[in-house]
Amino acid sequence: MAFSKFELYTQTSNDVYCNLMNYSRFFIPTLREVPADAVIASHKLMFRAGLLRKLSNGLFAYLPLGLRAFRKVEQIAREEMNAIGALEIKPTVVIPGELWKESGRWHAMGESLLRVKNRLNNDFVVSPTAEEAFTAIVRDELSSYRQLPLALYQINTKFRDEIRPRYGVMRGREFIMKDAYSWHADDESLDETYQAMGRAYRRIFKRCGLSVIPVKADSGAMGGSGSEEFMVESEIGDNTLILCKKCGYAANVEKASCAPDYTAPASVEEAKAAAANTPAFEKINTPDVKTISELCDFLKTQPQKFIKTLIYRAVNIEADISSERKNDSSSVTDVCNETFVAVAIRGDLDVNEVKLAAVLKAGEVSLASDTDVTRFTGAPVGFAGPVGLTSLPLIIDNSVTAMNDAVTGALEKDKHFKHTAYGRDFESAMTEDLRTVKASDRCSFCGGELYIKMGNELGHIFKLGKKYTASMNVSFLDENGKAQTPTMGCYGIGIDRTLASVIEEHHDGNGIIWPVSVAPFHVIIIPIKYDGEVKDAADKLSTELMQKGIEVLLDDRNERPGVKFNDADLIGIPWRVVIGDKGLTNSTPQVEVKRRNEKENRTIDLEKAAAELAEKIQEELNSLNG
Amino acid sequence: MAFSKFELYTQTSNDVYCNLMNYSRFFIPTLREVPADAVIASHKLMFRAGLLRKLSNGLFAYLPLGLRAFRKVEQIAREEMNAIGALEIKPTVVIPGELWKESGRWHAMGESLLRVKNRLNNDFVVSPTAEEAFTAIVRDELSSYRQLPLALYQINTKFRDEIRPRYGVMRGREFIMKDAYSWHADDESLDETYQAMGRAYRRIFKRCGLSVIPVKADSGAMGGSGSEEFMVESEIGDNTLILCKKCGYAANVEKASCAPDYTAPASVEEAKAAAANTPAFEKINTPDVKTISELCDFLKTQPQKFIKTLIYRAVNIEADISSERKNDSSSVTDVCNETFVAVAIRGDLDVNEVKLAAVLKAGEVSLASDTDVTRFTGAPVGFAGPVGLTSLPLIIDNSVTAMNDAVTGALEKDKHFKHTAYGRDFESAMTEDLRTVKASDRCSFCGGELYIKMGNELGHIFKLGKKYTASMNVSFLDENGKAQTPTMGCYGIGIDRTLASVIEEHHDGNGIIWPVSVAPFHVIIIPIKYDGEVKDAADKLSTELMQKGIEVLLDDRNERPGVKFNDADLIGIPWRVVIGDKGLTNSTPQVEVKRRNEKENRTIDLEKAAAELAEKIQEELNSLNG
Repeated sequence: MAFSKFELYTQTSNDVYCNLMNYSRFFIPTLREVPADAVIASHKLMFRAGLLRKLSNGLFAYLPLGLRAFRKVEQIAREEMNAIGALEIKPTVVIPGELWKESGRWHAMGESLLRVKNRLNNDFVVSPTAEEAFTAIVRDELSSYRQLPLALYQINTKFRDEIRPRYGVMRGREFIMKDAYSWHADDESLDETYQAMGRAYRRIFKRCGLSVIPVKADSGAMGGSGSEEFMVESEIGDNTLILCKKCGYAANVEKASCAPDYTAPASVEEAKAAAANTPAFEKINTPDVKTISELCDFLKTQPQKFIKTLIYRAVNIEADISSERKNDSSSVTDVCNETFVAVAIRGDLDVNEVKLAAVLKAGEVSLASDTDVTRFTGAPVGFAGPVGLTSLPLIIDNSVTAMNDAVTGALEKDKHFKHTAYGRDFESAMTEDLRTVKASDRCSFCGGELYIKMGNELGHIFKLGKKYTASMNVSFLDENGKAQTPTMGCYGIGIDRTLASVIEEHHDGNGIIWPVSVAPFHVIIIPIKYDGEVKDAADKLSTELMQKGIEVLLDDRNERPGVKFNDADLIGIPWRVVIGDKGLTNSTPQVEVKRRNEKENRTIDLEKAAAELAEKIQEELNSLNG
Repeated sequence: MAFSKFELYTQTSNDVYCNLMNYSRFFIPTLREVPADAVIASHKLMFRAGLLRKLSNGLFAYLPLGLRAFRKVEQIAREEMNAIGALEIKPTVVIPGELWKESGRWHAMGESLLRVKNRLNNDFVVSPTAEEAFTAIVRDELSSYRQLPLALYQINTKFRDEIRPRYGVMRGREFIMKDAYSWHADDESLDETYQAMGRAYRRIFKRCGLSVIPVKADSGAMGGSGSEEFMVESEIGDNTLILCKKCGYAANVEKASCAPDYTAPASVEEAKAAAANTPAFEKINTPDVKTISELCDFLKTQPQKFIKTLIYRAVNIEADISSERKNDSSSVTDVCNETFVAVAIRGDLDVNEVKLAAVLKAGEVSLASDTDVTRFTGAPVGFAGPVGLTSLPLIIDNSVTAMNDAVTGALEKDKHFKHTAYGRDFESAMTEDLRTVKASDRCSFCGGELYIKMGNELGHIFKLGKKYTASMNVSFLDENGKAQTPTMGCYGIGIDRTLASVIEEHHDGNGIIWPVSVAPFHVIIIPIKYDGEVKDAADKLSTELMQKGIEVLLDDRNERPGVKFNDADLIGIPWRVVIGDKGLTNSTPQVEVKRRNEKENRTIDLEKAAAELAEKIQEELNSLNG
């Protein structure tokens, strides 16, 4: 057996790792009551099993048992980062605001960023992520392409000032994130590390016993292209996932696409031709008709026959950001940097604002105010339409290209047009996929039926591109001695959330069922009464197990067996050994062994117990690690 | 060899611990230049050896090599805490301000406390210590004396908003502290844990290869009685230590006492008798005489013949704090809670304000303003004296009790008294040791000569008493079912400072000389050229060493041997193995081995190298751990 990193530090006793712990000494304050605000299993069980306590809304303390499990998730993440050559560093948690001003995020990031002024009036942030800090470190050291690629990571405290923290550590304010960042001379190199990170992430979750759904995700406010989110299914998840039953396609609804449920014309000419039999468009009175459903009733038609036109306001357009923010200070410019567009889409569909923002390279898009709608369309809200609209750019969802006899707003109060046709009556240079995919839409890869799950994001890998390296002036000399801006990736995993998700996936009505890889202890030994021969046998077995590297919790409490069994189930130790007088009086002394997720006890010889348990545990670890 | 905690997590390769690392892959940006603001060896070397980089004033990032050493110090602290039964937990770094208001420290603590408001206008602090958080956790779980004693600790991020951070991580703003807290039913139990912590702290420093000076320290603003500071000698230390050459007595000057250099009377009567031959005191004119030295010139006498009387303002008197702060909100009261006292001391001595504060149980004492001096003494500054002083309480330093013919201020401008005598002309109910001990004063234990060293505090153990448990309403039921307030201890070690101190104590002109216990790697292997047979031998030896649990840095760079040797010395790896063509062509292939702190190379057989190095390293570890 090879040494591990910490072997040599050890002083005389192995117990400095607390690998053999007496229950009575370990501060495991289990609860019968569930905290009033706990609605999900992990939140309830982390409190009931004495893993966690609350300091205030969204701020939690891990107690000894919880911390052991937590450290195992951390260590799994660390090992997998090391295995792909990423190097661990430790910047501070409190980061100079200057760096965030350089990148532009001091202004661009909302109020979830905890900003602090110190006594000297310097600005700081309590780090929610660390692109700036890592980039600043690398900037000062990077000179040659020979130093690239470089991947650094930390496992460190983060803070996000959630307005409404809930679900325990699943959505807390302070949490621990493993965040890695990489720098590359070119896109191929970035892609290589990105793929390695993707494989490492799959291994991390597999080792934790988690079923994750890797989904292509939109890159959100962070910019860049190419990203993958690692989701776990959760009824309280804050992500809507679009999944294909047939081919396994998975995407965040923010980015999901589907097969067209119409026959799209190949060109504007073909669209015109398709409208050959459509009468010329015609203005109609639609008094007091405001919604699509009212209009459908009024015209006795279907939403699919209607072209919905929405006016959007977009802010923080990327082109401007990178040019204006390079030498920061112009915070006002950033926020004022706005534009308006009209979006036309088939009446039964919804515009996906994340897709729209991506098309516009905008930091944020939102529906324009009523005043702005009137200003651009010349009519109150409800009468916008693509025909004759010249006051602002028009973007058309692909669905509209197949519409050759549609109703739409006439840019005039109480008026609509009927018989409008794409290609004949209006067109646009920007025809895009902007629809929000729904359950029962069809998979664009295999035509299978799509369905929806709610998911929680545990990890995210991400091609950032040059957003930070350009704004923070990072450069290196390439093979020709020419200064270049490196491209960058970032990769994060929420450790707390991962731990909570393990409990979500592995529990029953009685408590947690830890996978051995994350279990705070591998074995709990329950002497029916911790006294006499039973005590001796329990102590001996505990020591044998510990010497084999098995982590043992020895329930030495003076409690009834029922209480001990219930606590063992609640805290979820994977293997339980019960030692009683009766088994020991056998000609070959025996103990009862039970796996937490099985119903039946097995009786085995006491003297074989340590070897057998060690073997079973190693088997399970191997299968998780495999 | 027993398993260690992390053994079982390991996947296929040991390299997930980076225990065999190629230099070229490890991001060790060594520098020739020393940062302009670096004045002490550890600061310079941590930068030059690529252990650390600066993010801003007082905020530093550990790079991979530095983090490895840092984690070893952390792990040594963790193991020694575990070994005495303290349990690790992990509260947050950002702590609700409410808890600090409960304890009173929200108001009592100065501006070094980083206070933050979040978007919902809630108050938080970025934790500088965690008495409140730990006490809050324990408060909710504690019910019976059976749960006591309880000792919990964390190794976690702290922030102290130093006005003038300097000396690198020796006095940074953000740092990692191992802080432990314990709760007890009675003082005996507290003392037991306190002593165990003291032993653990001695072991921690010994294992790190540090020579610490344990000194009895004043408890400062934290209140409580009984404390010990663990100091390292440092010319830039911010503590003045009083040490005895003869008996080893060591104390912080804030609390140090010395043998009297006078014959003190046993009683006031004896003092009166000693003044039998002193003429009655007499007012004299002392025009334009303001300082003691002017007065000595004027009267042709010595400062020892003069009674200096100083007026002090004391704030935050403890009795008031505990009663008024229990149900907080009265911040103003705390600050207004002031009192004035006069202190008389022999003219050649200085008042120790920390001792004075302790006597008064005051949070802070400082010299009164000129206005206040005039208000209380009826004269400008320079004419205060104990004779006839009735406007405020008088505290007398022990030295004054032996003065039976002294000069002192006459409470009147340009007037002094001569021939004043303690006991005859004035006395006081409060006679205390208030003098500041100086070099060449005599040890009160053995009479040896005292001397002064400057020291840096690395650790501090501390009997807190009931300050936090009372103000935060913690209670437990004793054996008789009666509610009691537990007593408490706290115990801290600065990990960053400890690491920097290791470098201060272990370096030479060429770089760091790590003790093996803290070294980022145990062995550096330098192939003269990483190619052909030399490469094969270097790879093989590296692997052999790694398999023996030795951490190896393999210098695979394409650099001249001189560069590699210099870098090896700079980064201070304890053992260096040089592998060259010449040694390998020997009939028995040989390599050169050198210990970082020795001058001479030794030639040893390649095939015995791994075993021999492992043995030497284990020996040194054993001797540090012993």
